[in-house]
Amino acid sequence: MRVVRSIRTMQRLVSQAKRSGKRVGFVPTMGALHDGHRSLLRRCRRENDLAVLSIFVNPKQFGLREDFAKYPRREHDDKKLAKKEKVDIMFVPSVKEMYPEGYLTYIEVEKMTQFLCGRSRPGHFKGVTTVVGKLLNIVTPDVLYLGQKDAQQAAVLKRMARDLNFPVAVRVCPTVREADGLAMSSRNQYLPAGQRREAAVLYRALREARQGVAAGNRSSAGIAGGIRSRIGRESSGRIDYIECVDADTILPLKRIQGKTIIALAVWFGKTRLIDNIIVRT
Amino acid sequence: MRVVRSIRTMQRLVSQAKRSGKRVGFVPTMGALHDGHRSLLRRCRRENDLAVLSIFVNPKQFGLREDFAKYPRREHDDKKLAKKEKVDIMFVPSVKEMYPEGYLTYIEVEKMTQFLCGRSRPGHFKGVTTVVGKLLNIVTPDVLYLGQKDAQQAAVLKRMARDLNFPVAVRVCPTVREADGLAMSSRNQYLPAGQRREAAVLYRALREARQGVAAGNRSSAGIAGGIRSRIGRESSGRIDYIECVDADTILPLKRIQGKTIIALAVWFGKTRLIDNIIVRT
Repeated sequence: MRVVRSIRTMQRLVSQAKRSGKRVGFVPTMGALHDGHRSLLRRCRRENDLAVLSIFVNPKQFGLREDFAKYPRREHDDKKLAKKEKVDIMFVPSVKEMYPEGYLTYIEVEKMTQFLCGRSRPGHFKGVTTVVGKLLNIVTPDVLYLGQKDAQQAAVLKRMARDLNFPVAVRVCPTVREADGLAMSSRNQYLPAGQRREAAVLYRALREARQGVAAGNRSSAGIAGGIRSRIGRESSGRIDYIECVDADTILPLKRIQGKTIIALAVWFGKTRLIDNIIVRT
Repeated sequence: MRVVRSIRTMQRLVSQAKRSGKRVGFVPTMGALHDGHRSLLRRCRRENDLAVLSIFVNPKQFGLREDFAKYPRREHDDKKLAKKEKVDIMFVPSVKEMYPEGYLTYIEVEKMTQFLCGRSRPGHFKGVTTVVGKLLNIVTPDVLYLGQKDAQQAAVLKRMARDLNFPVAVRVCPTVREADGLAMSSRNQYLPAGQRREAAVLYRALREARQGVAAGNRSSAGIAGGIRSRIGRESSGRIDYIECVDADTILPLKRIQGKTIIALAVWFGKTRLIDNIIVRT
């Protein structure tokens, strides 16, 4: 496995690979890799000739009071995991390499970014779309792999790729969960043991909501209310949002219909966790 | 020459050409081709294996009260000219092909777009960077050719390409002028004969300004004042702006130093013309 830190080198290596007919797969991450990332890397490895992983904690997607400084960085462990998963190139640019002095250009997806995490984290998705747009131009993959855990991010990036005609296919892979159902996240390690145990309520509540929809409940407010009260009963979590949204547009629905994402963000202490479940009516 | 209207076909053709090692050059235009465009096409033809021209009158770069509806469209003449200049592919997408229903994504370059034409035409450069970003993903050229006549546009697009790491080299080609010095523009044809004659004052005034700088005048206000009074004396033009700006950042300068662009926009009747000249101290 090759570790690349320069954009120019990365572009040169991929351009050579593509000229020799290789299919390039790409998994963008912020590192602190867990089994969720691992599932993306495995699919990427299986489906492509060249498997590229990027690790970049992107300052532009963190708000002023957010956890950019303390976000876990463990390049050494990540490198071991990447090697084990047979990644060909691990791209690890510095902040200065990605955003040199005088940087001025941003990509934004409108409307879809106004709700859910976009409301709680103003500017977050502008940072995400900008950095992924850059990475697509640097890695020029044939296929981009994203996780369903970040449902809004996946929908926004799919839309960006389509709207801006990036010549890439986007694959969204299922959320990988701990034994108790908690969605894998690099932020789970912030949780002290008590909150960690409590956090399993999120997936229990989401599954209960899915059963409610299956049983004929179509009211978004009703579904959200059920989730809210279960989380309140079984944990100390403080709710940021619970929303039922259209899976493609990420716009809130009054009544659940078609492919719908039930999404939530909940604070446990100083840690904000997100999760979601897809339902189809 | 092949005329292509579908994005998918365009991407397929270029991807084939690139896989067989061809170097791709690209000239994006809004059509109504004149000798300025012709000079870009010639250089593109000379320097590449595959020469691609796009013609797309981009609604997103026109303001509400601007000339989108009446902007000249002459695909038939443009096609003849393109053939003559040995263009390989003329890409002519429809508005619906470029902006299908539900379109939501925009590229913006900050700061550089706040002055000059950006001040007079709010939203204009957001439309320009978005459409050129899309075209770069559709045509994936090795080299992009732009005209110096649109100095701010060229600087903004250069910055966008660099900031977002588009794997493309940007070449900015000199302004081509009519015999009396008027910069070639598709909008010149809007001018009735009297205004057309008067409009030659713009380049006379810019050359005089350049002589002033060469003679040691470094005051932007002084230079702009000289241009303003010459245009006032010799024409009925109404000045939108006259500015001395840094050639890379497009930020206004109080004193002229380094590579500077003296740029202006002037109304003749209902037609807004722009021109500029580069000076070096």
